[in-house]
Amino acid sequence: MTLERLNEQNGIDSAVHHHVEAVLRRYLTERRADLPELAQTFATAVDTLSDFALRGGKRIRPTFAWWGWRAAGGAASGPDAEAVLTAVSALELIQTCALVHDDLMDASELRRGNPTVHVRFAEAHRAGAWLGEPERFGMAAAILLGDLALAWADDMFTGAPLSEDMRQAARAPWLAMRAEMFAGQYLDVLAQAEGDESEDRALGVARLKTAAYTVERPLHMGVALAGAEADTITAVRRFGTDIGVAFQLRDDLLGVYGDTEVTGKPAGDDLREGKRTLLVSLGLRYAEAAGRHADAKLLRGALGDPNLKRHTVEQVRALLVEVGAVDELERRIETLTTSGMAALDAAGLAEPGRTRLADLAIAATRRDR
Amino acid sequence: MTLERLNEQNGIDSAVHHHVEAVLRRYLTERRADLPELAQTFATAVDTLSDFALRGGKRIRPTFAWWGWRAAGGAASGPDAEAVLTAVSALELIQTCALVHDDLMDASELRRGNPTVHVRFAEAHRAGAWLGEPERFGMAAAILLGDLALAWADDMFTGAPLSEDMRQAARAPWLAMRAEMFAGQYLDVLAQAEGDESEDRALGVARLKTAAYTVERPLHMGVALAGAEADTITAVRRFGTDIGVAFQLRDDLLGVYGDTEVTGKPAGDDLREGKRTLLVSLGLRYAEAAGRHADAKLLRGALGDPNLKRHTVEQVRALLVEVGAVDELERRIETLTTSGMAALDAAGLAEPGRTRLADLAIAATRRDR
Repeated sequence: MTLERLNEQNGIDSAVHHHVEAVLRRYLTERRADLPELAQTFATAVDTLSDFALRGGKRIRPTFAWWGWRAAGGAASGPDAEAVLTAVSALELIQTCALVHDDLMDASELRRGNPTVHVRFAEAHRAGAWLGEPERFGMAAAILLGDLALAWADDMFTGAPLSEDMRQAARAPWLAMRAEMFAGQYLDVLAQAEGDESEDRALGVARLKTAAYTVERPLHMGVALAGAEADTITAVRRFGTDIGVAFQLRDDLLGVYGDTEVTGKPAGDDLREGKRTLLVSLGLRYAEAAGRHADAKLLRGALGDPNLKRHTVEQVRALLVEVGAVDELERRIETLTTSGMAALDAAGLAEPGRTRLADLAIAATRRDR
Repeated sequence: MTLERLNEQNGIDSAVHHHVEAVLRRYLTERRADLPELAQTFATAVDTLSDFALRGGKRIRPTFAWWGWRAAGGAASGPDAEAVLTAVSALELIQTCALVHDDLMDASELRRGNPTVHVRFAEAHRAGAWLGEPERFGMAAAILLGDLALAWADDMFTGAPLSEDMRQAARAPWLAMRAEMFAGQYLDVLAQAEGDESEDRALGVARLKTAAYTVERPLHMGVALAGAEADTITAVRRFGTDIGVAFQLRDDLLGVYGDTEVTGKPAGDDLREGKRTLLVSLGLRYAEAAGRHADAKLLRGALGDPNLKRHTVEQVRALLVEVGAVDELERRIETLTTSGMAALDAAGLAEPGRTRLADLAIAATRRDR
């Protein structure tokens, strides 16, 4: 469906993520057309990137940002709303960069049921029986295409026809968000390397990589674009941080207990990758405290084991429940959701935005994928 | 020396690259201070990136941009000049991203006589006897730090206190430049993989990766910031393209004949990496045309051979001279420099900018490193 048709039918509110996709599609089509004649071979590589950006995804960041805008009094339609839609859609191109580079760093083969970008290019290299190593070519293509997505994210954001006041207001969260995301990813990789078992580190990664990047800063952007006062921004950011951390804790649980059929990821993938989540930190601490040293050893051994067996995954699942780590995580998700909702109520936001943000928060913390 | 002291002493014109470094240093210090408390471990990783960005480099892109600004009538000092200095210094952070990612893609161990970023982090991993593979950790750190440099480049550019007219005028070259650079890098990697021997491809890579990114677009930015008319922009871009391609052809020669003591790179490094330069394309064509099939075979065999011996490098050096490829490259550099200078003269630029651009062009095409 075209963007114009969607607008005509029912405005942006009723289908935010369709609108985000339509804006993204248009932007990527324009950028491809702008590539110089000399770069036509590159344009076909860019098509792979565009397919990736346009194929699925929950569009969670632009959606939070859009409802932040609306809840702080931003219009549902008209020129400002269109400009805001473009500015917040740019968040999806940052996410495209993050996923393409993340898949490469994690050596992931599948994303949303399809081969990851670096794998696709390695396959093209292998199919063409080209010179050099296929993996090295795949890596180069994924690095360059991720970089392009990041540069285009900025171009899309700065090219949105915002008023000067709006642009200035959105700059701080836009700037902070990317630095926080890269910081969170780095700390995540470092924690895996160091075998860090501290809860503080796990929570720090959740704060930066998920809460700030996925919820708090997109919301901050949305309400700042609507000209929100400092008090409102503070309350909304508190909501975003709590819900964002709860979102990550739900992710921790899905990474171990998620149904492969629903999540699209192999069972126990987080364990295999050696992710240092709060679930793991608590599991280790509780197991040791209960004198279950063999269980702690089993869990430590499972972390980062690329050949982790289904049977061991089952054992780890059972022990994390038995030592109480799963219950504690559910309690924390509940507590964070409650405190987040209180911050939301205190923010004095407008309807229907307030309710939509509350719904998004519930969906983010109770989802099964 | 501080920026203030430099300004007081002699203005920006007399030491552009010192000013660029001072502005960069200040920007990076501010960004580091802005990192959230939670990200302090990341801040030490950022120090490695800052060291890399601040340690040496010719600052060629901001220098071309600055003299473009001056030659099109921009002021030597005052608020606009300061804002332009910041905007053009952001080009160095794009270059930081390009080098960090390029070294990773090429698996280069040394840059400017020091270990490359991915190598440094792999070494830290090894020294700490951390979990997982050191190379994978080094790769992740280099990807994330390069991404950060790219994001900060945009923040630095968009944060420069330019007037709205200036910002709008600079947007087109800023946007095009990055897409062209990534396109050029991709085509370069692809040509190596495909073993492409065509002169068109080699020239296309030179146009995008070097001419557009290093000379044409920085100049375009500079003159556009000064409000240059379309005619001036066209003439300046023509100058930039010709000089930029000549710059790359000089690089081709240095990549094979450069003195290791002066270039800081191993002898014959381009051959070892399998770079598909115009020098190589011409060498192969001339060798075949002269019936020197054994020489063509020797050259093809040398390309991309990681264990290339010094003796073979010497043989390749000799044959490229004998078949006339080196002479042809020198002729093309000469022709491009002449046509570039004619375009510069036709642009109707102001002094001292015009002369400084001419000097830069000569330096770029006659350098020995």
